[in-house]
Amino acid sequence: MSTSTKFISILGSTGSIGVNALNVVRSYPDHYQIKYLSAHSQADLLIEQAREFLPQAVSIGDATQLIKVKQALPGIEVLQGRTGLLELASRDDVDVMLNALVGSAGMEPTIKSIQAGVDVALSNKESLVMAGDFINGLLEAHGVKLFPVDSEHSAIWQCLTGEAAEDIKRLVITGSGGPFRTLPLESFNNITVAQALKHPNWVMGRKITIDSATMMNKGLEVIEARWLFHLPAEKIDIVVHPQSIIHSMVEFLDGSVKAQLGIPDMKIPIQYALSYPRHLKQDWEQLDLAKIGTLTFEQPDLEKFKCIQLAFDALEQGGSVPVILNVANETAVYRFLDGEIPFNAIPELITKAIDAHEFLEHPNLDDILALEQWTQAFTKRSYRS
Amino acid sequence: MSTSTKFISILGSTGSIGVNALNVVRSYPDHYQIKYLSAHSQADLLIEQAREFLPQAVSIGDATQLIKVKQALPGIEVLQGRTGLLELASRDDVDVMLNALVGSAGMEPTIKSIQAGVDVALSNKESLVMAGDFINGLLEAHGVKLFPVDSEHSAIWQCLTGEAAEDIKRLVITGSGGPFRTLPLESFNNITVAQALKHPNWVMGRKITIDSATMMNKGLEVIEARWLFHLPAEKIDIVVHPQSIIHSMVEFLDGSVKAQLGIPDMKIPIQYALSYPRHLKQDWEQLDLAKIGTLTFEQPDLEKFKCIQLAFDALEQGGSVPVILNVANETAVYRFLDGEIPFNAIPELITKAIDAHEFLEHPNLDDILALEQWTQAFTKRSYRS
Repeated sequence: MSTSTKFISILGSTGSIGVNALNVVRSYPDHYQIKYLSAHSQADLLIEQAREFLPQAVSIGDATQLIKVKQALPGIEVLQGRTGLLELASRDDVDVMLNALVGSAGMEPTIKSIQAGVDVALSNKESLVMAGDFINGLLEAHGVKLFPVDSEHSAIWQCLTGEAAEDIKRLVITGSGGPFRTLPLESFNNITVAQALKHPNWVMGRKITIDSATMMNKGLEVIEARWLFHLPAEKIDIVVHPQSIIHSMVEFLDGSVKAQLGIPDMKIPIQYALSYPRHLKQDWEQLDLAKIGTLTFEQPDLEKFKCIQLAFDALEQGGSVPVILNVANETAVYRFLDGEIPFNAIPELITKAIDAHEFLEHPNLDDILALEQWTQAFTKRSYRS
Repeated sequence: MSTSTKFISILGSTGSIGVNALNVVRSYPDHYQIKYLSAHSQADLLIEQAREFLPQAVSIGDATQLIKVKQALPGIEVLQGRTGLLELASRDDVDVMLNALVGSAGMEPTIKSIQAGVDVALSNKESLVMAGDFINGLLEAHGVKLFPVDSEHSAIWQCLTGEAAEDIKRLVITGSGGPFRTLPLESFNNITVAQALKHPNWVMGRKITIDSATMMNKGLEVIEARWLFHLPAEKIDIVVHPQSIIHSMVEFLDGSVKAQLGIPDMKIPIQYALSYPRHLKQDWEQLDLAKIGTLTFEQPDLEKFKCIQLAFDALEQGGSVPVILNVANETAVYRFLDGEIPFNAIPELITKAIDAHEFLEHPNLDDILALEQWTQAFTKRSYRS
């Protein structure tokens, strides 16, 4: 590993991914230096992080906390709101921007960093779900690379190291199946928020945890994989693997399959996105398959988890449909978390929004942002519980 | 894949590995051309292969069949015996020599090919078990590469594609545990030849099938891996995996584990050794984990499978000990197959031979060949059933 220091920007530094990334940076102070941090509303944690890692600038989303952050961090530039976030995303004096933002709000920062010529470690899958084609064009134009942070895409990326893209037969994305894998379909309408937030294996943010419960997360990952690895949907399969030990696989034309495995902990893919192509030593818990004993696999139940099919359909229809899918899902998930709608209403609302929207074959960035606003408004009003 | 034709020599072409390799060559006639074939005693099959693939020369081990082969193959050079085999191994006008010979007899041909500057696709693990250090020196001196054919080593090799050797934490070699994984230790002395020849997953030759039953095969593979991948024994572990779907794994310093999977069929690693670094398209049965359902893992039982510990000890003692281990095992296995000794006598005979031999720290090739002869004689006479 080269000893030259990598300058890192972390957008969304107080979330689960951001905190884990800072743990990695803390353990390799010679390798990484934090240049920018941003937080949505957790000002206290942002202040604590800034005091430890001494970034050049930070941005706080919540306007009411600006004064507090400024006073706590003399000598550090403090920006604010959406403007502050996009300003940090646009700076070109970092080597990697880790996009750990949640949801569709993360899309524009990805685009800004690419336009600034900065490689992006992408935890925000919504960027690619909403604007995959557009982003791939930008990547090529600016000679910029995307490093996946999602455990599934990191697995595929690791399996593809040193391999020829033409030799890929298909990708197999694994998913735990979430907390409702064995729950009968009849009981789906009574699922509570508390039940849906109990993920069997992974400790993650609230939004992605609900996406795991509906399995929309796998659907979004299929779309993300389509753009990250330049493969059509028919070459991307999902297999349910409740133990979350095999994080995904690549099958090659000769029938050989490569898989990446590990304990279910985001630390590994987060560090790999920052250390690629090297594996930096860490004394994390070692995978012990003899102790785990059994790994199981099954087909996903498309009857119970309607979001999976919605995602495959959206990918096939293309154009504006994945934008609507993503934003309607996100809005519906927050309404479910707020107790406004039942669990089953999530795929219903997505279907309604997709059916109601005006299809665009090649949405540009302005179109996508307008579609986002339309979909949020539509999804907020179109279900009364 | 480059369209330039690779010239191939297959030593041991009528065995299980050789026949599979010819299937691969048959499916890619533009990629591969057979230049030399050798067989031990199956003259009819050798003749049939030569008529199809039109090699420049063949060699038949069994002197009594020389005339028959010569008469059947006008226009093809026909060599004979050990001399003929070594002569073919020494020819430098091929790109790859596939060493599909069984047992210690395969070691010298490996050395001859390396000395001729020819890359070796190595199915004969005994070459490295007996002369790993010596062979690694030759490889460097002659700028020659070894391509593993064993499914476990092919798996590790594939997992290491594009990775830095310094990032490896350990190798995990998987093994089915053989037909006696669940048999109580008390019953081991009554194991019959027919029982030992029934491997649960793999269709292989008789010698390696017995090595799977004693699990010496895993021990030999650990020694082979030590030399192929330049890692000490303490970085090589064995895990029992009865379904033989994960063919082996590499753990990296960050806790990330890469595995290669596939249906248990030698076709994949054989082709990969010839097509490396590419995966050539084949319509072989596709791995379907959802259909397989369950993969299990357990620690190997060192009490029941004493050969594993013998192999680790031999690697630690080094010098001449692995030579004795390998030759005593081979001789004992054939005596078991001939009904001369019980199953449990295999590790006993190996231990006796190791204890009785005169230790050499750095055996040269002549030493190894002399040790081979001594061990064969010792192991043949030292057990009366």
